[in-house]
Parts: sequence; C-alpha cells; structure tokens
Amino acid sequence: MTYLRNIWYVAAWSSELSGAPMMRKILDDALLMFRDAEGRPVVSSNLCPHRFAPLNMGKVVDGAIECPYHGLRFNSDGRCVYNPDGDGKIPAGARLKVYPAVERWGCVWVWPGDPALADADLIPEFSFLDDPAYKPVTGLLHVRANYRYINDNLVDQAHLHMVHRDTLACDMVRLAKTNLVKDNETGTIWSNRLGVDGPPPAIFDMIWRMTKGEYIGTMDHWVESGWNAPALIRNNTGVTLHGGTRADGVETKNTHFLTPETETSTHYFWSICRDFALDNDMLDQQIREGTEYAFIHEDEVMLHAVQEAIGDREFWSMKPALLQADVGAVELRRTLDRMIAAEQKISAEEVRPLRQAV
Amino acid sequence: MTYLRNIWYVAAWSSELSGAPMMRKILDDALLMFRDAEGRPVVSSNLCPHRFAPLNMGKVVDGAIECPYHGLRFNSDGRCVYNPDGDGKIPAGARLKVYPAVERWGCVWVWPGDPALADADLIPEFSFLDDPAYKPVTGLLHVRANYRYINDNLVDQAHLHMVHRDTLACDMVRLAKTNLVKDNETGTIWSNRLGVDGPPPAIFDMIWRMTKGEYIGTMDHWVESGWNAPALIRNNTGVTLHGGTRADGVETKNTHFLTPETETSTHYFWSICRDFALDNDMLDQQIREGTEYAFIHEDEVMLHAVQEAIGDREFWSMKPALLQADVGAVELRRTLDRMIAAEQKISAEEVRPLRQAV
Amino acid sequence: MTYLRNIWYVAAWSSELSGAPMMRKILDDALLMFRDAEGRPVVSSNLCPHRFAPLNMGKVVDGAIECPYHGLRFNSDGRCVYNPDGDGKIPAGARLKVYPAVERWGCVWVWPGDPALADADLIPEFSFLDDPAYKPVTGLLHVRANYRYINDNLVDQAHLHMVHRDTLACDMVRLAKTNLVKDNETGTIWSNRLGVDGPPPAIFDMIWRMTKGEYIGTMDHWVESGWNAPALIRNNTGVTLHGGTRADGVETKNTHFLTPETETSTHYFWSICRDFALDNDMLDQQIREGTEYAFIHEDEVMLHAVQEAIGDREFWSMKPALLQADVGAVELRRTLDRMIAAEQKISAEEVRPLRQAV
Repeated sequence: MTYLRNIWYVAAWSSELSGAPMMRKILDDALLMFRDAEGRPVVSSNLCPHRFAPLNMGKVVDGAIECPYHGLRFNSDGRCVYNPDGDGKIPAGARLKVYPAVERWGCVWVWPGDPALADADLIPEFSFLDDPAYKPVTGLLHVRANYRYINDNLVDQAHLHMVHRDTLACDMVRLAKTNLVKDNETGTIWSNRLGVDGPPPAIFDMIWRMTKGEYIGTMDHWVESGWNAPALIRNNTGVTLHGGTRADGVETKNTHFLTPETETSTHYFWSICRDFALDNDMLDQQIREGTEYAFIHEDEVMLHAVQEAIGDREFWSMKPALLQADVGAVELRRTLDRMIAAEQKISAEEVRPLRQAV
Repeated sequence: MTYLRNIWYVAAWSSELSGAPMMRKILDDALLMFRDAEGRPVVSSNLCPHRFAPLNMGKVVDGAIECPYHGLRFNSDGRCVYNPDGDGKIPAGARLKVYPAVERWGCVWVWPGDPALADADLIPEFSFLDDPAYKPVTGLLHVRANYRYINDNLVDQAHLHMVHRDTLACDMVRLAKTNLVKDNETGTIWSNRLGVDGPPPAIFDMIWRMTKGEYIGTMDHWVESGWNAPALIRNNTGVTLHGGTRADGVETKNTHFLTPETETSTHYFWSICRDFALDNDMLDQQIREGTEYAFIHEDEVMLHAVQEAIGDREFWSMKPALLQADVGAVELRRTLDRMIAAEQKISAEEVRPLRQAV
Repeated sequence: MTYLRNIWYVAAWSSELSGAPMMRKILDDALLMFRDAEGRPVVSSNLCPHRFAPLNMGKVVDGAIECPYHGLRFNSDGRCVYNPDGDGKIPAGARLKVYPAVERWGCVWVWPGDPALADADLIPEFSFLDDPAYKPVTGLLHVRANYRYINDNLVDQAHLHMVHRDTLACDMVRLAKTNLVKDNETGTIWSNRLGVDGPPPAIFDMIWRMTKGEYIGTMDHWVESGWNAPALIRNNTGVTLHGGTRADGVETKNTHFLTPETETSTHYFWSICRDFALDNDMLDQQIREGTEYAFIHEDEVMLHAVQEAIGDREFWSMKPALLQADVGAVELRRTLDRMIAAEQKISAEEVRPLRQAV
C-alpha cells in the first residue's frame, strides 16, 4: 500500500449521508458512514470488533450503530455502549476504529492517517461548491482504474480532441502549448492551455447561444486544470469573444475528486458548476447526461483499458514516451511520489517498487 | 493447508450415493464417490492417474469406474483392471488413490489422512439419526465461509436474538450465561444455556401448540450445543412448562456436520430430528423450509460477509473482542489448533501463521 | 514464462486480416494486427508507447495505426509519424514494438523472439493448404487449456474410441500399436497407427459412400499424426479397401495449429483438407459443423477439465501413468523441453520448475 494517508479524501457527497448506515470501500478498507443524532457525519471501520460482521447490515439506534450479528452498539466515538447478551458487560477491546471526518464544500471528507494530524483547514478551498452564486450539478462514478491514471487524464488537454470529439474537441486548444504554473500558496499545480481566435468547442458554442444568443466571429478558449494532492482536480474552462475579457465570457468551474477504492478502482466525485442560467433545470439534466456519457463511454473505457494494459506494472518502469502536454501529469506524479515517500520515510525512488510489489 | 486430516469427515448423506459417479471437492481435493456392485461406498481421487481426466465424467462399469478420456477402468481398491488400448497391458503406476470410507448414522464418512489410522469407531455417536424413534429432516447447504466461522456460529447462543428474530430469539436465553461443559469420555465440548420462567421462542410456541395444545404460564428453555472435532455439532434444544421435567417437554436433536470444501467454503450437512409427530409430513416440509430459510437468508449471509471481511487474515491476529457467550467457540478453536499442531508436529502457535499463509 | 520464442506461431488465418485493426493476445502479450496500405500484414504490440492505450480501439489512417487516446500515429515499422498535439514534435521513445510477420499457407505467422533470427523458411511446409487440388475447410477455436495438453491430445489415437465414439472410433485402430517415426529432415515427430481388415470409422464409411458409392468387405484405416515445434500438428487419415493401395482410397489432410494465448488458454486454428468432392459446398458445411462439434463438445470439455484438474502443477511432477499410445506425446514433450532449455540456456530439467513457478 503506498496510498498517501495523512490527507483528506472525499468519502461521500453530503447529500448521500443520512441516519441509515452505508458502506464504502476506501483505500482498501471497508468504511461505515452515517449521521449521528445531531446530524454529524460518522465514519468508522465497517467491521464489528467482536466477530467482524459488516456493520452497514445493521441499523442506527439512538445515534449508535448496532451490529447485526450480536447486537453490540457503538457510539460516534467508537465506544461500545450496549451489549444485549447475558449480564450486559461491555467486552474489553470492543472499540470501533473511528476516522476523523468533516463536512465541507458539500462533501464529507475523511482522514485515513494519524488522527492527531487531521486539521480541517488542510482541505483545499472549493467555495464555489456551496456559493449560492453557483449551481453545481454533481455525480459519482466508479472507475476501474488506479486513481493516478485518472489524475493524469484530468490535467491532460491533449486527449480532448480524440476522446471527446463531439463536445470538448477544439483545434486551437489542441495546437496550443500547456503552461505549467505552480501556486506555492495553495499547493495547486496548474496545467493551462489557451486557444486564441478560433471556433469554440461544440459544448461552448451551445452554451453561448443558449445564454447569450447568436455571435459573429471567433472566440478565445481557456482550459485550466489545477491539481491538489492526492487527487483533487479543479477545471476552469470557458470562452469569450476573441479579444474580449473573461468577465464578458462564460465559464464553468468543474471539480473532480478522486478517492481510491482499491489499487485498481476509484470513486470519482464530479461536479460541473456554473454561474449562469441557475434556474434552468433542463440544463442541469443536459449537463448530467452529457457528463456521465463522456465519463462512462469515453474516459472510463479508455482508463480501464489502460489499467488492464499496465496491470501491476509500475508506470515509470514501462518507460512511457512523453508529450509536451504531459508536463502537468509528470509534475503531479512526482509531487505525489515525494509526498508518499516523506510520509513513509523512504526515498521517492522507493515509492515505485512498493507500488509494483502490490 | 492446515486441515486436520486424521479424522472422519462427512462426504455425503447416504441417500446421495448411487451407482452413478459423483464428484465433491473436500479439503481442496476433488473426490469421486459412487457405490460399487455390492452397494458399498467408494471414495477416491477424481483424477485418472493417466491424464488426470475427471472420472465423474465417466461411468461405472461392473463396479469399476471407467475414465471418460481413454477408457481405463479402476476397481474399488483403486487398481486399474482394464485398458482398452492396444495390447491392453495395464500401465505401471495406474493406481487410483482410494480413501477409507464407511457408512454410519445415515452418512458416508471419509478419512483424508493416513489410512492405517482409519478406525470407524472414532466416529462420534449420533445414533438418533437412524433410530426409528426419531424422524430426521436432513439437507445439504453450501456456505461461502471457512468452516471455523460456522463452528463458532453454531455453538453461539448470543446471535439467536439478532439473526433469528422471528423464530429462535428468546429473551430468557439471551440473558442467561453460557456454561462450558467438557465431556472427557466423548471429547464433546458443550456450550449450554438455560432460560427459566419466560415465554418460549416462537418456534417452540408453535411446536407446543401443535403437539400438546394450548398452555398457560411460562416455560423453561434449554439450548445445548456440543462440538466434536473437527466440525461436528449437535444441538439439543427444547422447552418444558416452567418447573416441569424435560421428559414432560418437547425437544429436537439437531446435527450440523461441516466439511471444508476449500479454505473459504464449506459443505454443511444439517438435520433436525424429532421424537414427536413422526408421521406429520407437512411438519417435515415446514421444518425443511424454515431451516433452509434461516441458514440461507440469515446465517449464510452473515457468515459469508464475515469471511469476506476477514479474508486471508488469521482470526486471532485481528484481536477480536470476546463476549461471555464465546467461551465455547474459543475453547473449540484452541482444541482444534492443538489437534492440528499435534498432527503436523508443530506448536499450536505455528498453526496460525500457516493458516495465514494460505 | 517458458514459451519457445524463436519460432513461428500462427497469429491469424490470412482471411481474418483487413485494413481494420484487430487485437489478439498471444504468449501473454496483446498484439495488434492489420494490413498496411500495400496489404501486407503488420503485427505489433497493441499498447501505445505513450500512455499504453489499446491501439485496436483506434483506426488505421494512411496505413498507419492511430492511437485512440491522443492521436499519435505509427507506421508499419513502428515509428511514430504524426503527433497532432501542440507543435507536433514526435516524442522521443515513441516507438511501437513490431514483430516479424509473414503470410504463408493461408496463415499470418508471427515471430515473438529475436527478430534477427526470423527466417520465413523455418516455417514447416503445409503446401496443401493453398494447393488448388485441395479444398480446405478452416476454423478457429478457443480452448481453455495449456497448448501442451492439446498437443498431447492431437497425437494420441487412444482417445478416439472414447471421446469420439460416433465419428472417429475404430476398433482396429484402437487395438493397433502406435509407431513413432522421426523425420530428421523436417523435424516432424510422427505417431502412426494402422488398422487392418476391419470396419472403418463412421466418418469414413460416410465419406466412402458419398464419394465412391457402396462397398463390400473390410477396409484398412491409417491415422498418422505429425508434430512440429512448438504446436503444429498435421493429421493424415484415410481408408482404402482391405489390401488396396492408399492411392485407391480416400484421405483427408488435417492441420491443427496451436498458439498459446496464456498459460491456460490456446488459440486453435484447424483445417480439414480434402482432394475429393471439391465443389460440394454442403460437404464443407458438414465438415465444419462436425469438426466444431467434436472439438467444442468432445475435446475441449475434456481438455479444460484436465487443465482445471492439473492447475498450476507441472505435468511430470504428477507422475502420470503412461500408455503405449503416449509414445509420441512423451517424445514431443521432451523435444519441446530441450528446445526451450536451449533457448533459455538452462537445462531441460530446469524448464519444468520454471513452468511450475508461473
């Protein structure tokens, strides 16, 4: 296992959690999630410490999770608070592992590492996700690939014209150079492209007509992909009439939060956030269908094929050829290697064999 | 592999065996079973020693099994008695591995260890299974869990009120203490509970009304689970009017014979034996449906979930919390560890890592 | 991996290849195949050297394969000839591994070893496959077994009377001895049987009646199976009236070309070639249906069962009993072991543990 552990991962959209228990496997561990009596998210191991029954098959009673096998109950601190059997003595060692969890930006975040280091302020800022000026359309997909290949895909503008021919492909972006920008304050690594003076991609041609009406002439189109460890990507993408200001254009802010399920599968929490046509429910539906179509039928198929092709082999050991467009993907891979190495107190080179040995 | 080998396992109910070959995987080995010309059970390897074709795809000819690939025939001693090819010479080394097998208590028992040690008298006594005073209803289930988790489940009275809420749950048994009783003569380890002066479980309320009519007042209810190595459980469970004798009550004697198929799956031969309402065929049907419902929809689901949760990990290495009710399960696990250690001439502690390495 | 690599394998029937890319896994590697602009077969790795996307999901443009992920194009030499991204610079190391491939006897042959050693004249002669005097009926099957078990099956006349009871079974062949003949010039190892003065098998009784009419008396029947490394089998099988010449009889020349997909699965390219009734299309259909029935429902079921039974174990380590009929199978196994050992510069004994370690 070479997951980064002392960092926040998205465990669920806030809207997924209720008083009913649910299970999600994250970083190879089965986690239980539910809201306690005060509505706060509780994230713990899904295995009862008595006989390792899956707690999500039980129910929440008075804010405590009740094991479906023998009825032990555990509160939100993980303490066993009730044993229905015999004299009712609480068995020694009956303690459920609870993970630090907080709710922010419409998500439930979990910290799988050392609880003493869990600081909610380490979560990067994604305030537009709950800014009333924005309307997010969100979803969750399951990708049969290691999260690192999805990282690479999401900051890579060179695949748009091949994989998303009918929606995002844009010749002026294809022919542009990727600019790597590191924001030392936020830790974000940006891969930015700007296409100037050409026809926009089909999706923005549609959005412009819908929101601003017909237009004459060419446009400028930016695609800016920012990455924060371990796998939080923001995508600012928009168009304006050629030579115009961004303020006069239209833009969507999109997020892609990746949480490893296993070494070869990933929970993919996505959002498309817009500050226009907020009340257009039909647009919500179009965005949802279009995004899911693109992710499921275009990206996921490719990412799964890449995962199958590479298998257990370590990426660098395959000596990949690199495009100029890979500048961001390479930088974030190396940054992630360094972070994992530091956490495990090993050298960055050693991260790779470990990955391979899995 | 850390199966106990010098011991009898149930290979089949007697009623399953005929002159037609059948295959059952036991302790990771594919075994062939059929009755020879005299009706005696034959249990052998299912692989022809020539080209390892599965013999159960062949047929029995004159009491010998004929390989479906090249037609070699093997008698009940495992000797090759016919080669249809060329000059018909019996090839050297064409010998089928045959296992000691005996029929007792309505079952075919097989001995996977040293044949010289196979003594039919080592089979524990379950004479009620073919006592005309009893009517057994029997069945066979496939459980996707290691047999040890099922052992634990079957001597554990603390799960009844959670997993079998509508049938076996009984508050006075839930609140009682498990008494551990070792019978040095038979080697049986008993886990017994007695509930006094309360309402009986739904199943015995039903049985009492059906066999003895209406009743007034409370009852006493005993649940006694005896285990013999490696996985033969007997369950005596009954009720009597509070303060009455057991002879005045009703009881069923149930058996649960577990035979490992693999490390993660088990053949589960069950019986419910009663000494009342022997001719009530409708009751047979009710018992069969009720038992299969409970095992398949209540226990098996839980046991499989536990197996999935624990995976390849060794049970003790997970540091389980223990209830008072686990006193029997812990004792039988340790006894089994000691028996396997003695057989393999290793220490009991070494049994565990071996299990883990599988 | 202990595949023989410096040797030709059949990758496809010539008729399978077109200008559209197709993938076939061979010797555990995913290979891409298509015809270039001149119609020549191209065989290469199926993984793009940039991001390891599967090239068969792309398309052929101007005789070059275009990667579906980022649009890099590779010509039939494996050189990257086009990069649509940014300034279009061809990335260093963007080279596709291309395998030597030739077309002969109606097949596309691939050489998975050292390209410098690839000599098309090393392909054994099967000229009847494209001789106008013969009519081949060909097919491709997928067998869930290691190719060596199929090798053994195809030179083994002792299974015909058991596995192919209604078609090929012939008592006089069953009772005959297998003669081992090594042809030092071609390297072919022959396993031959001759049945004399008896009724022919059902299939030849049918063929004789159809092509030559009714007959009186008995026949002679030959079954001759020649093997060339690693898994090219030819089968000459025919009948003539007892005491007559072969020239007065009827014979089919059959080929069985096996190409390992993985250690436990095989591509099986078969042909049945006849020099009679060339224009009888209904006979083509009968041959195709009969052959596929025999291979799928008779041989494949058995070979898969044997593969499952043996699993990862090395064949000799299981100490198989041997029939006289196995003389050819044993000889070709040992020859293959010696060839692999020589290629890997190890001893023949070492080939086996390697196989086992897979």
